[in-house]
Amino acid sequence: MRKVNVAVVGASGAVGTQMIKMLEETSMSLGEVKFLASIRSAGKELTFNGETKIIEELVPESFEGVDLALFSAGGGISAKFAPEAVKRGAVVVDNTSHFRMDKEVPLVVPEVNPEALRDHKGIIANPNCSTIQMMVALEPVRKAFGLKRIIVSTYQAVSGAGNQAMEELKTQTQAFLNDEPMTAEILPCGGDKKHYPLAFNALPQIDVFAKEGYTYEEWKMVNETKKIMSDDSIQVSATCVRIPVLSGHSESIYIETEKPATVKEIQDVIANFPGAVLEDDPSQQIYPQALNSVGKKETFVGRIRKDLDVDTGVHMWVVSDNLLKGAAWNSVQIAEKMVEMDLL
Amino acid sequence: MRKVNVAVVGASGAVGTQMIKMLEETSMSLGEVKFLASIRSAGKELTFNGETKIIEELVPESFEGVDLALFSAGGGISAKFAPEAVKRGAVVVDNTSHFRMDKEVPLVVPEVNPEALRDHKGIIANPNCSTIQMMVALEPVRKAFGLKRIIVSTYQAVSGAGNQAMEELKTQTQAFLNDEPMTAEILPCGGDKKHYPLAFNALPQIDVFAKEGYTYEEWKMVNETKKIMSDDSIQVSATCVRIPVLSGHSESIYIETEKPATVKEIQDVIANFPGAVLEDDPSQQIYPQALNSVGKKETFVGRIRKDLDVDTGVHMWVVSDNLLKGAAWNSVQIAEKMVEMDLL
Repeated sequence: MRKVNVAVVGASGAVGTQMIKMLEETSMSLGEVKFLASIRSAGKELTFNGETKIIEELVPESFEGVDLALFSAGGGISAKFAPEAVKRGAVVVDNTSHFRMDKEVPLVVPEVNPEALRDHKGIIANPNCSTIQMMVALEPVRKAFGLKRIIVSTYQAVSGAGNQAMEELKTQTQAFLNDEPMTAEILPCGGDKKHYPLAFNALPQIDVFAKEGYTYEEWKMVNETKKIMSDDSIQVSATCVRIPVLSGHSESIYIETEKPATVKEIQDVIANFPGAVLEDDPSQQIYPQALNSVGKKETFVGRIRKDLDVDTGVHMWVVSDNLLKGAAWNSVQIAEKMVEMDLL
Repeated sequence: MRKVNVAVVGASGAVGTQMIKMLEETSMSLGEVKFLASIRSAGKELTFNGETKIIEELVPESFEGVDLALFSAGGGISAKFAPEAVKRGAVVVDNTSHFRMDKEVPLVVPEVNPEALRDHKGIIANPNCSTIQMMVALEPVRKAFGLKRIIVSTYQAVSGAGNQAMEELKTQTQAFLNDEPMTAEILPCGGDKKHYPLAFNALPQIDVFAKEGYTYEEWKMVNETKKIMSDDSIQVSATCVRIPVLSGHSESIYIETEKPATVKEIQDVIANFPGAVLEDDPSQQIYPQALNSVGKKETFVGRIRKDLDVDTGVHMWVVSDNLLKGAAWNSVQIAEKMVEMDLL
């Protein structure tokens, strides 16, 4: 098997740290692996497969000889450096939102639309974390029964906002327990004007507000779903909410299928879908939980039940580690799939 | 104005403590106020309007001379003692679920269906916390535009499960921050077999599981909505989730109205409805937050936006203090309304 030379851009971030773990566990045969970051993080050490590695400064020439470049350092970095990597012959898997809706760029969840990888022109986009786990849960249902409509309310963890946001939540939480005032400088959204405490709170804003009163995070779930499932007719609306959880996104999802299906039929197609794990036994209080999902690559699905009025309506609860299937694992899995399909 | 003699049953609980505050602030002219509890809590002291009061043991004779009995000590206590209070001439406002679906018992949110109070036969039921705030947000919309359908996902605080559950969450949270193992003995539901940590987690179970895969909490939202709005044709489905918040329930609500309405029209009817406060300005990141709702009697509504596909579909975010409007305040408000209507 050909050895793959890899560059990880944004190795010191919350996703980057998980990217390194996923590369340590990958089935790919790795050649040279280099870690790249802005000048601020360059020079820092990290451990990869037991060896100490030094983070190098990211420059266009960093990608010489690189086969696979995994980007997770913000949309601006991807915009500037992904084309440089492609120019030098690398395949880019980009974890930011920058290229996701670009018609030339496949947006891929390997269990759902791997064939889209064949159309790549150097860049493949990794979908938004909250979209990916929803796709893993719903694709088996769509294939078996059709999918007309999705209404999703999310319960998102703070790690999606990065290491500093995780620290902010911990600091706020300790302050609250100590009866001290809480300060907020990052959440709900680092790039927005106002900041609110998340500890012992729920914030119905992820990313900044966009058109029609929806946030960008909500629009991502709408637009990315249609692109990944290659069906603009699927009706999608989302409410994205941050809750005081460190890792593991939960989602309350309502769908309407084309054909009615029983709970058992829905459970069966999900249980048999790769990457999905059915955790659904109310009699034993078995349902997916954010805390249990941490460190796992799968998407967990439970609380599956029929709507009480609409014959094709189904409710479910979907949980996954947003840093793994929602980011680092899906990126590395895309690369593994490309090797398998002889595209890398 | 006639002086009202009041008995509070379950004065030492999470709701009872708030009940006392609400009585201190009430517009009713109070006569004798007594605090009743099981033998376990009897003899304890509490402060009411600056005076020290001793909690008396609850016995049938406790209700002699009482005009208004506020119950919040569990369904079993209400089942046994509410009829005793009624027999002795008291009007009971019961905060448990025991009498809520009884056809002889009005289930009342004073802003929504005060006229139902006229049919009382001694007992009035206070609805479930998560139902009450949804009713305050949706009644103005129902009156103006009709209401066909509700899909709600809740983000519920732990205080609804009582003082011990609040302590459990705090203890778990501190343990997690200290890198120590978390223990769980109460949540998600004291009466169920298994217990899970809630700190940094989300638990899609409130109360025990019932028919069709829905929990009792979810059935309460379904059945109570139809009873309060006097309309069995309203389609309701709920997903009830506990999150690591101490007080303040949040709800992501999707509705379909009979007649289409603009966001501005929905905002206007809510802003003009008593008990509802519009907090809805995405451009200024203004939306309801659980932490901000604590200690307030109102229900806060924001993130109002049209569904992206269904012309009559509207999404919103509704927050209220579950111990106040969800419990203690709604109970005292029922009593105030009865005085106003000359029923007490």
